[in-house]
Amino acid sequence: MFSKSITSTTRSLTSNRQIWLRNLATAAPTIPKTQKGVIFYENGGELHYKDIPVPKPKPNEILINVKYSGVCHTDLHAWKGDWPLATKLPLVGGHEGAGIVVAKGANVTNFEIGDYAGIKWLNGSCMGCEFCQQGAEPNCPQADLSGYTHDGSFQQYATADAIQAAQIPKGTDLAHVAPILCAGITVYKALKTADLRPGQWVAISGAAGGLGSLAVQYAKAMGLRVLGIDGGSEKGEFVKSLGGEVFIDFTKSKDIVKDIQDATNGGPHGVINVSVSPAAISQSTQYVRTLGKVVLVGLPAHAICESSVFEHVVKSIQIRGSYVGNREDTAEALDFFTRGLVKSPIKVVGLSELPKIYELMEQGKILGRYVVDTEK
Amino acid sequence: MFSKSITSTTRSLTSNRQIWLRNLATAAPTIPKTQKGVIFYENGGELHYKDIPVPKPKPNEILINVKYSGVCHTDLHAWKGDWPLATKLPLVGGHEGAGIVVAKGANVTNFEIGDYAGIKWLNGSCMGCEFCQQGAEPNCPQADLSGYTHDGSFQQYATADAIQAAQIPKGTDLAHVAPILCAGITVYKALKTADLRPGQWVAISGAAGGLGSLAVQYAKAMGLRVLGIDGGSEKGEFVKSLGGEVFIDFTKSKDIVKDIQDATNGGPHGVINVSVSPAAISQSTQYVRTLGKVVLVGLPAHAICESSVFEHVVKSIQIRGSYVGNREDTAEALDFFTRGLVKSPIKVVGLSELPKIYELMEQGKILGRYVVDTEK
Amino acid sequence: MFSKSITSTTRSLTSNRQIWLRNLATAAPTIPKTQKGVIFYENGGELHYKDIPVPKPKPNEILINVKYSGVCHTDLHAWKGDWPLATKLPLVGGHEGAGIVVAKGANVTNFEIGDYAGIKWLNGSCMGCEFCQQGAEPNCPQADLSGYTHDGSFQQYATADAIQAAQIPKGTDLAHVAPILCAGITVYKALKTADLRPGQWVAISGAAGGLGSLAVQYAKAMGLRVLGIDGGSEKGEFVKSLGGEVFIDFTKSKDIVKDIQDATNGGPHGVINVSVSPAAISQSTQYVRTLGKVVLVGLPAHAICESSVFEHVVKSIQIRGSYVGNREDTAEALDFFTRGLVKSPIKVVGLSELPKIYELMEQGKILGRYVVDTEK
Amino acid sequence: MFSKSITSTTRSLTSNRQIWLRNLATAAPTIPKTQKGVIFYENGGELHYKDIPVPKPKPNEILINVKYSGVCHTDLHAWKGDWPLATKLPLVGGHEGAGIVVAKGANVTNFEIGDYAGIKWLNGSCMGCEFCQQGAEPNCPQADLSGYTHDGSFQQYATADAIQAAQIPKGTDLAHVAPILCAGITVYKALKTADLRPGQWVAISGAAGGLGSLAVQYAKAMGLRVLGIDGGSEKGEFVKSLGGEVFIDFTKSKDIVKDIQDATNGGPHGVINVSVSPAAISQSTQYVRTLGKVVLVGLPAHAICESSVFEHVVKSIQIRGSYVGNREDTAEALDFFTRGLVKSPIKVVGLSELPKIYELMEQGKILGRYVVDTEK
Repeated sequence: MFSKSITSTTRSLTSNRQIWLRNLATAAPTIPKTQKGVIFYENGGELHYKDIPVPKPKPNEILINVKYSGVCHTDLHAWKGDWPLATKLPLVGGHEGAGIVVAKGANVTNFEIGDYAGIKWLNGSCMGCEFCQQGAEPNCPQADLSGYTHDGSFQQYATADAIQAAQIPKGTDLAHVAPILCAGITVYKALKTADLRPGQWVAISGAAGGLGSLAVQYAKAMGLRVLGIDGGSEKGEFVKSLGGEVFIDFTKSKDIVKDIQDATNGGPHGVINVSVSPAAISQSTQYVRTLGKVVLVGLPAHAICESSVFEHVVKSIQIRGSYVGNREDTAEALDFFTRGLVKSPIKVVGLSELPKIYELMEQGKILGRYVVDTEK
Repeated sequence: MFSKSITSTTRSLTSNRQIWLRNLATAAPTIPKTQKGVIFYENGGELHYKDIPVPKPKPNEILINVKYSGVCHTDLHAWKGDWPLATKLPLVGGHEGAGIVVAKGANVTNFEIGDYAGIKWLNGSCMGCEFCQQGAEPNCPQADLSGYTHDGSFQQYATADAIQAAQIPKGTDLAHVAPILCAGITVYKALKTADLRPGQWVAISGAAGGLGSLAVQYAKAMGLRVLGIDGGSEKGEFVKSLGGEVFIDFTKSKDIVKDIQDATNGGPHGVINVSVSPAAISQSTQYVRTLGKVVLVGLPAHAICESSVFEHVVKSIQIRGSYVGNREDTAEALDFFTRGLVKSPIKVVGLSELPKIYELMEQGKILGRYVVDTEK
Repeated sequence: MFSKSITSTTRSLTSNRQIWLRNLATAAPTIPKTQKGVIFYENGGELHYKDIPVPKPKPNEILINVKYSGVCHTDLHAWKGDWPLATKLPLVGGHEGAGIVVAKGANVTNFEIGDYAGIKWLNGSCMGCEFCQQGAEPNCPQADLSGYTHDGSFQQYATADAIQAAQIPKGTDLAHVAPILCAGITVYKALKTADLRPGQWVAISGAAGGLGSLAVQYAKAMGLRVLGIDGGSEKGEFVKSLGGEVFIDFTKSKDIVKDIQDATNGGPHGVINVSVSPAAISQSTQYVRTLGKVVLVGLPAHAICESSVFEHVVKSIQIRGSYVGNREDTAEALDFFTRGLVKSPIKVVGLSELPKIYELMEQGKILGRYVVDTEK
Repeated sequence: MFSKSITSTTRSLTSNRQIWLRNLATAAPTIPKTQKGVIFYENGGELHYKDIPVPKPKPNEILINVKYSGVCHTDLHAWKGDWPLATKLPLVGGHEGAGIVVAKGANVTNFEIGDYAGIKWLNGSCMGCEFCQQGAEPNCPQADLSGYTHDGSFQQYATADAIQAAQIPKGTDLAHVAPILCAGITVYKALKTADLRPGQWVAISGAAGGLGSLAVQYAKAMGLRVLGIDGGSEKGEFVKSLGGEVFIDFTKSKDIVKDIQDATNGGPHGVINVSVSPAAISQSTQYVRTLGKVVLVGLPAHAICESSVFEHVVKSIQIRGSYVGNREDTAEALDFFTRGLVKSPIKVVGLSELPKIYELMEQGKILGRYVVDTEK
């Protein structure tokens, strides 16, 4: 009898869906068959806001009713397809989705229906390679990426591997937590990668931007002394309001290296380059303190990081690449947020307006973080 | 009576079994419905070598045709039930099983049919708690333990969570690798916990025993200088043959603390207590070098570790508990073995003789490591 | 009789003194030949407040005009002589002295006359042994200890090895900084020894005492979540006023282990035992979180630390001894203080009243930290 | 003209000399007033082998009767003066000197007359700055450098700060240990900077050269698996004879990145770039394993290290500068040598022949390590 339903599955997914729905004894919520989402069929092609099927979770997956999703610059790269790695096509983008678990596969033990859950860049990984074995799942060669190789959070219902999905405490503001799921975790991971002690100086290059403003707050909460670098006095005030102790305005400084070293009594112990300007990155290898650590975290398509070998050796500095966080980083970054130590300033618009946001991003006109409400 | 209920279970599960067998397109091997295994129905009760059903892997599990299984002192505790944690009942013991993957659940991506795989103490874990998130799955509160809460390797076919199962390179000698899966990984983990640098001294307390002799070899391969402690000149020669640089015979030394400190120019930087004698453990806190690390790794049922607070502080020593290894430790411990740097001396007997081995263990008459051949 | 021999020594040393005084081209301040100090001639003997000679710095030493000195429980041990290590006799105690450099030996390059400097427990060390080589000078077997093997800060002028003397920024309040030089550095070092990440929980056992109240503040400044343990609601309010998030009153709790674990969602990641009660210490090995670290920092004369080997291993906890800080710890602990993140509540009395304070200490009647003004 | 001013200096210092000589109660050896040394008066100027005064140790210094000194490429830079940092002039070069302590300043406690001691690159440091405080004395801004800012080991008697001078066990072969004092320590430090675990892969770029051949041996002794890179099959055989497991011949490989990654199952966990070719350095950022660490250790005058930001981040690699070792690294590197785990192939010539060796170095004709015998 079962094999018959399997056979019919190939014809239509409906009966299969009914089977797993029946298996979900606790699955109180009614899950529709179709939903609204933004999908594109070729890289750089039209972005359609339309009805698409609700996906079904595999045995190891949860189905999340996405309430809000942040919009990240990476979504633009996924749409354009200008990174070395090919995207899935057609594709529903988005990897900062916050919502509620409405269904789960038979093998899932760490989520219950009704729990809050988050979709992040790393949707799932093989769990068997050397990188997964050491908890570095984002570096898994078979990493499954939300909004890139796995349909993401720009839809009302999305699937996520239960092992990787973010656990969000109930009662959390789902709109504000959305950008934490990529931007927040990423800068928190970068700060951990810098491996600083409370009381040491960290410079944030690009401190007033979306990533930068989160980095300033995380750094402050971690007991670090923060020097922010960005352009314009308005940004300076913003950085200081977030906890920055010193602001260096690159539009005014005549000798950035000297100004930063003077302000920090010899240079910051760590630098977080959320700015992706190659010149700013190379400069950071000059002003960083002896024994200090320069962290690269942004992903410009073709940039080169340059440093003087002589200085690198004599000052014994390190240049460390930091990708996205793993499960532990995720839990910790969320904890800082839910304890109110990090605020995430956002602008909420309807999911239907997403194509316009892509347009603004492409024009470089985005200030701050947009979050889409999947119900609108 | 038990075999009857087993039989009826087997019957009721038959249809399910047929389903998953059919799904296993690549499942070339023929898997029987019953097999030989050693089972007991109550703690301390009779150990039956008999026909029992072959278990079925869940979506996340692999089914391993166990060829050989090591016998560990922990198996005795599981049978007796004298540890704080209750065992599953009835129970098939064993947690050092080496064999070949013959079937796998739908969700398994990191094993193929025909791969070599190992069953270790940690069979599976929740993968969602804070300990699993940081790669410390053995510390998961919901840890599923082979031969304890999950039927183990004292049977011809056993299941294991694919994430946790050990990956053994093809061509490895499955009899000799078996004890590595618990004893080897455990001492390797203890050595990692001691966090020593190549060139530093490590003392192995109980160096000539099953765990100790592996610890000596791992330590040597890690570039450490090894001082072995045990009783009797024969053991001394054995320890030296394995790479021990110094041997301290506790049956002859008049001042162990002094002798060890003299031999190591101030005390070993680390101590691995595979001996579970409370007196030996406390003594190790005295002879360890200033700033040194004492590692506890054995599991005596009611022992207390004592140290002088004054000495502890002024010498700034550390006493570190080390449990079993995680997936990364497992891969590394196996790599040392497969590269030939660690030998595992074993005595192979048929699985049917297991009850006799339990008897010998209870009488404290076991020397070296027994490995059972599941075909006999 | 003693004062006579002192006088004669003074005479015989005069010519030498004149030599080094002449060498001190920059030594603007006039340095008297005698000064006020508190000295004792045998352990447990009378404490004399009297005129004693001003010591002369060796080529590697600075001479500090001590303005204020904290009084520590260790001073009582030095006077009584009840620790395993013998004191110098006669002895001027004190190891929390803050003052101004008035002279320096020919070989000193890191202090100028007029700089602020601090006398701490470790006055000097050999700089050649393996412990000094790794920056662990407090563990040097030839450690020279202020107020113990080297005349300390209970006098107006004291010498200190320039390498070990604390560098205190000019303008610092010398009375308030005094207790930081031992109590502050010690708890800061203990917190570093616990090796916690910002956002993790630390329990301070004895949170309302002199060491404890500093520990709470340092922990808070390091981004940790603080649970304080002490007795009485007044102490609870005090701990919370310093930044403690949770207070456990051991006079009221019926199950301390459970209460602490409940309040911290599983137990604190680290415990700082400033309380020296053996029962409290052993209890901390029970409530600490799995994988957590228990730090011993107090120095009770004969206490034993006990832990269950089984729990130690299965929970993989660590018990770490932490002694006093090194030069780096000193600089960092002072930096937190001078940035205003740690307050040091003190009671200032004249140096002449020191014998009375010893009396109060012996009677266990000291609350808070006494600081002596060497001019009175 | 120069020798005249030297002479007069010698005269004026005579009385002082007599004072310290008298103070050296234990100074059994007769110390001459003049000695043979190689000196130059301007950068790039003539190298004179001639009689020069024996220097006098300061209170913190030892005087070493240098028996042998290695010749390092850095000596050529010091002579030419083509590095950013100015040298002392006139200058006696050399920073790999091994000899016997013949006198010591009043303040020295960690050396006795007759001890073996080594002169290394870092002659002394301030011991008061933040870098000295953390044991990173080579990074001290006031570092005093042997054969650069402090007369070095190309003379029969040289002074060294007792804190920094290397302690060499009596009985050590002073000719063979000489190159360990810079080359050995430097590659050992680089390997420590790579922070690898025994069993992991390290690639040595330039494996058959003076530094490289020591690096291969240290890596092997530290339990690492070594892949050597160099040009020519003769060098390949040499590298393998030292313990290299794999050799990649860059003159034959058609795709170095691929060949290295294939040989190490995904790339080495660490790379030590003793080759200073910018192309080789940048290439190492490509073949290094994900999460791996590239170490820069050579000091080419104007080279730039380039890496792709995208790869740096996604692979989460690190580029770490490693300078020379500190006191602890020195002791450890010497210990590996004295235990016979590292051999140092040398060619001994008389000190008088040093000018010829400079000539060969400048022509790039040096193979292996030259050591000068100061008696010839």
